Amino acid sequence: MRTQFDETIDPALTSWVESANDPATDFPIQNLPFGRFRRNGETDFRIGVAIGDQVLDLRLAKLIDTADMNALMGTGIAARRALRLAISRGLRQGSGRQDVFRNALIAQADVETGVPCRIGDYTDFYTGIHHATTVGKLFRPDNPLLPNYKWVPVGYHGRASSIAASGQRFHRPHGQTSGPEDAAPSLGPSRRMDYELELGIFVAEPNALGEPVAIEAAEERVFGLTLLNDWSARDIQAWEYQPLGPFLAKNFATTVSPWMVTMDALQPFRMPFQRPQGDPEPLPYLDSPANRAAGGVDIRLEVWLQTARMRTAGEPAQLLSSSNYSDAYWTVAQLVAHHTVNGCNLQSGDLLGSGTLSGAGANQGGSLLELSLGGKQALSLANGETRSFLEDGDTVILRGYCERPGFRRIGFGECAGTLLPAR
Amino acid sequence: MRTQFDETIDPALTSWVESANDPATDFPIQNLPFGRFRRNGETDFRIGVAIGDQVLDLRLAKLIDTADMNALMGTGIAARRALRLAISRGLRQGSGRQDVFRNALIAQADVETGVPCRIGDYTDFYTGIHHATTVGKLFRPDNPLLPNYKWVPVGYHGRASSIAASGQRFHRPHGQTSGPEDAAPSLGPSRRMDYELELGIFVAEPNALGEPVAIEAAEERVFGLTLLNDWSARDIQAWEYQPLGPFLAKNFATTVSPWMVTMDALQPFRMPFQRPQGDPEPLPYLDSPANRAAGGVDIRLEVWLQTARMRTAGEPAQLLSSSNYSDAYWTVAQLVAHHTVNGCNLQSGDLLGSGTLSGAGANQGGSLLELSLGGKQALSLANGETRSFLEDGDTVILRGYCERPGFRRIGFGECAGTLLPAR
Repeated sequence: MRTQFDETIDPALTSWVESANDPATDFPIQNLPFGRFRRNGETDFRIGVAIGDQVLDLRLAKLIDTADMNALMGTGIAARRALRLAISRGLRQGSGRQDVFRNALIAQADVETGVPCRIGDYTDFYTGIHHATTVGKLFRPDNPLLPNYKWVPVGYHGRASSIAASGQRFHRPHGQTSGPEDAAPSLGPSRRMDYELELGIFVAEPNALGEPVAIEAAEERVFGLTLLNDWSARDIQAWEYQPLGPFLAKNFATTVSPWMVTMDALQPFRMPFQRPQGDPEPLPYLDSPANRAAGGVDIRLEVWLQTARMRTAGEPAQLLSSSNYSDAYWTVAQLVAHHTVNGCNLQSGDLLGSGTLSGAGANQGGSLLELSLGGKQALSLANGETRSFLEDGDTVILRGYCERPGFRRIGFGECAGTLLPAR
Repeated sequence: MRTQFDETIDPALTSWVESANDPATDFPIQNLPFGRFRRNGETDFRIGVAIGDQVLDLRLAKLIDTADMNALMGTGIAARRALRLAISRGLRQGSGRQDVFRNALIAQADVETGVPCRIGDYTDFYTGIHHATTVGKLFRPDNPLLPNYKWVPVGYHGRASSIAASGQRFHRPHGQTSGPEDAAPSLGPSRRMDYELELGIFVAEPNALGEPVAIEAAEERVFGLTLLNDWSARDIQAWEYQPLGPFLAKNFATTVSPWMVTMDALQPFRMPFQRPQGDPEPLPYLDSPANRAAGGVDIRLEVWLQTARMRTAGEPAQLLSSSNYSDAYWTVAQLVAHHTVNGCNLQSGDLLGSGTLSGAGANQGGSLLELSLGGKQALSLANGETRSFLEDGDTVILRGYCERPGFRRIGFGECAGTLLPAR
């Protein structure tokens, strides 16, 4: 799967949907990401594929006969690839199905996108070693990484019910906090609101309870990737998280981008998975020749901020930081193999978060906690504002894309969310 | 809700279903717990209520017109109580609906029960203060409870996909472990398999994302309680759980009993919620007059073990320990109020675990970790076997019931699960 070069990603392909041939689009014909959308006034979501500035309604295009994305995701890799090929052929220049497909197109500007599928269980990992190191240093300057970090793809269960699609708006959460000087904790709105730059990994074909997925077969169980913002209330987290991990500090909101970019579309951007010299080799169940050769993915990730003042002044969002998914310490295949090694069953539509993806540089943090050194050094924005943590009205926009000479750009669209004042 | 004495729990009621009048039954007419079942050869589950040794099929009894338990659970407290009253009246001695209801009865021995509803999200709390103290002592003899314990109802997200109904059989999970003497971790079957005695709390009417449920309204959002066994691999847990909490050590299997005992049925067994003298009062959002007056529930809980050798010899299960839910440090209403205080949305059918419910005595531990002092002192069984942790073929059975002079016994049925050898 990782090395096969198939016809749907041929850089020479062009589409009769003209906007898909724009070099700047996130959605050329080589991408074809899946999502759910509805038109004005509709209550139910349809299944679609993004192409240029349009969405192809797969049912109207007579390619599928269901609105159940989870069922579609649960089919095997062969059926999924056959569907992808049919979509690609129909959208190509000169396609004989152009008339049918044209009636199935609708402008992205005219639809509302939703969470791409019904998410049963959500797991969040911790694969960003630079994030783990920087955050660990805030607590343990001499020993930032815990002993298990380089052996175990550390993860924990998150909350599925509060995951929403890009455009999510939520109120600053209330919670218990207790500072080191406080005689007793108190309840109030969080004062240390943060975002986390992550990727979301969506499960395709399920595994039965009790049946692990070997690393060699793990990527075929992945439908695709999205952007993911793991909103976090740092002050609530600091007080609640011992000994069982984060809970109310994270489960009030999580935002995902609407388009699942398939592993096939990412094929030209795969990279060797390499550990820094001196680091331990993964245990055998987390190791394979294919994973070593091409377990990584070169995805550039960006965080943009638009404050309420910028919005009022008509100013665009400002880039806060960027990083690359190839810096992750564990690969997609390793996460699936680890998650199932004890027999845990992954179901179609389940979501795995990558954990915060920070770069090695001090300005590459994937959260404000990192960029502001735990809130001690506020960021200066171009318009004169400063930020240690998020303020009411802030909109955070995650972006991601792959670029490589000789290939079409593959983008993820955007993952935007807005923090509203506490109720 | 907690103080109203309604006609469905009148101890004088008797049923024309004779087995329901047996003083030893878990399911007198005052109980009427809800669950899902299917007959031999059926694939879909039906909704039923346990009565004596029978199940009443609610659809055949013409009381409901759905097989969707979550939809039934999501109706308001008034609709749920009206249904409960109709079931009660139809099952009473002298009921005019006896003919219709009789055709809707099937023997419990002839049905397979399932998980009582579709579980979206599963949260596990940590309300057993004796468990937290005993386990804490294993790691921190002088300071067993962390500073947040008496302020925060500590909880974390669990895995919903691997929850199954009583009768669950699962293989000893593989996982990474690393002892203090090991140069590097290794993968292998867990050697410290354990159970945890818990109650499960099922959510009824949902709350919208962003809208907390006040403690005064919290219990109305609870449909009922079951027994819950949070199977745990202690050696996997010890190595993986820092800093984000338990993950693969818990998510390979969780077992619940099939019958949800409603809060109404438990009304005669409510108790004042009291903190030990000197402990802090709960913060206002976790406090209410009704919670003080009757937040607790007097439920006796038991753990029974039947080893493979006992089974072969035709010997019954042996009681390992017992405890009482009234020892929990946080009440059901407090858990719901805390879970939603940040706006987190609970959905119909979501499950909250109580955490391990141990008593104060050394022989009242709700897990083998406690009873064997971290594996250092094996338990002696009556047949000469010993146990520090579970062995292959062990069946663990949880039981729970309420008893009070002048009232009918209200039982939970049983929650049984069997550990099979590693694959």
